[in-house]
Amino acid sequence: MVSGKMHTDVSETEIIVRYAETDRMGVVHHSNYPIWFEACRTDFIINKLNISYDELEKEGFLLPLTGLSCKFISPAKYGDIVIIRAKIQKAGVVRLTFSYEIINKTDGRLIATGMTEHAWTGRDFKPLNIKRKAPELFEALTQGCK
Amino acid sequence: MVSGKMHTDVSETEIIVRYAETDRMGVVHHSNYPIWFEACRTDFIINKLNISYDELEKEGFLLPLTGLSCKFISPAKYGDIVIIRAKIQKAGVVRLTFSYEIINKTDGRLIATGMTEHAWTGRDFKPLNIKRKAPELFEALTQGCK
Amino acid sequence: MVSGKMHTDVSETEIIVRYAETDRMGVVHHSNYPIWFEACRTDFIINKLNISYDELEKEGFLLPLTGLSCKFISPAKYGDIVIIRAKIQKAGVVRLTFSYEIINKTDGRLIATGMTEHAWTGRDFKPLNIKRKAPELFEALTQGCK
Amino acid sequence: MVSGKMHTDVSETEIIVRYAETDRMGVVHHSNYPIWFEACRTDFIINKLNISYDELEKEGFLLPLTGLSCKFISPAKYGDIVIIRAKIQKAGVVRLTFSYEIINKTDGRLIATGMTEHAWTGRDFKPLNIKRKAPELFEALTQGCK
Repeated sequence: MVSGKMHTDVSETEIIVRYAETDRMGVVHHSNYPIWFEACRTDFIINKLNISYDELEKEGFLLPLTGLSCKFISPAKYGDIVIIRAKIQKAGVVRLTFSYEIINKTDGRLIATGMTEHAWTGRDFKPLNIKRKAPELFEALTQGCK
Repeated sequence: MVSGKMHTDVSETEIIVRYAETDRMGVVHHSNYPIWFEACRTDFIINKLNISYDELEKEGFLLPLTGLSCKFISPAKYGDIVIIRAKIQKAGVVRLTFSYEIINKTDGRLIATGMTEHAWTGRDFKPLNIKRKAPELFEALTQGCK
Repeated sequence: MVSGKMHTDVSETEIIVRYAETDRMGVVHHSNYPIWFEACRTDFIINKLNISYDELEKEGFLLPLTGLSCKFISPAKYGDIVIIRAKIQKAGVVRLTFSYEIINKTDGRLIATGMTEHAWTGRDFKPLNIKRKAPELFEALTQGCK
Repeated sequence: MVSGKMHTDVSETEIIVRYAETDRMGVVHHSNYPIWFEACRTDFIINKLNISYDELEKEGFLLPLTGLSCKFISPAKYGDIVIIRAKIQKAGVVRLTFSYEIINKTDGRLIATGMTEHAWTGRDFKPLNIKRKAPELFEALTQGCK
């Protein structure tokens, strides 16, 4: 199914901060960071694993979050161009962990760091062993977290 | 399936404005009003039609939006308690139109008005004739828009 | 303040649909379209008027929505690349109207159309006459809606 | 400023899951949990500290997030009534930590747990010593985390 190798282990996604993402403090509301992580995770899967997350779900491999953590270092503002970087932190047979950083593209300032922990499940949300079900994908994933 | 009659034709939903719903202008971002309309539409369907929208979807009756309009009269702010009112404006065999108003509970000030137009469809998003497929539901709907 | 002329009257913005923007119907939730319109409006102001909306606000020119309408033609899905197009529909001394369309980049399918109506106001949300306060900006705006 | 004592140390907030909060997996998207935590934090501050967060901001006391973590135990679904519980975990002179749990009201099932870490800052986002600036508020906060 998945045959591509990962050439590098970090994927980058560029985003322009939307007005709707700000709150009355004048900066990006923290609930948007997990959404940005996810946008970058989407790109990671396409760019590094040569499959879309959409296709993964259609094949019955879901990757719901089991955990999330985020450190907010400096605020992002409306109109800022930010770069989100994702990499695989740990690839197990049932769990997958990504780590992220978000920087301001203009000045390189670190905005936030974070991690998301996921479980591989079927459509019934029951855990599945990705190594057994999709060995090539598992292989590609583990290559990304050396 | 649906047997209840509508005793009154307006449903009210009370919401406390969330911090995340504000933007850097210090007021509620306009993209939240359609979400509040929907929360009130959910309550309308439960309270007035004696069925949940969740059940409707499970029976294969979807109600996606085909149109939306909104007038923004005065801003809502973080912590405000607002009341959303929904009623059926027009109930056709394929289309259903709701109208809404949002007021500030404390001072009665009008915040916004709006309309949403929906099509009855199956899970394939193809239109269906609700009068034929669910005559009792259609009957209840038409009673709400006299 | 604003001296640039508008060379063309349509601005385009490309967006990749985020997972968080979908709902349980499997398609983009309608509340995201106003946010996409806004992202495109932001680009329009930078690209066509040579000023950022951020700067406009800092100079005390706010542009809150007074009205919104949207027609939903066909669904957008997770991972779709969509193009949003904005142009000025009408530029008055107090009101400004944009119109939009959203298309699927891959197949050109029309996803949605919409309009937003805005009032020029000061930080106190009281209307102001943009022609008097910022004549060059007003001139540029009117050139965009011939 | 703040004179009220905290009689109990947990505040509860009830929320009905909105359609817009679901994603195409059919369950609540994880980015909504921090927003629900915040809604409960808002209620906590009003109910337990006898001041609104709105007033705190107006007096120049901001409480931006410096950290967030969340464990997702079981999914929440459209229409579910959920109860969010917040309590103060740690109240320092510059930092404040809340912990949360979200349960399904109907069956008591645990949906998620989480923590948010905040810094007391002025409007310039520079840390301030809340014990020195607002001793009564600090006193009330520390009573909540015994």
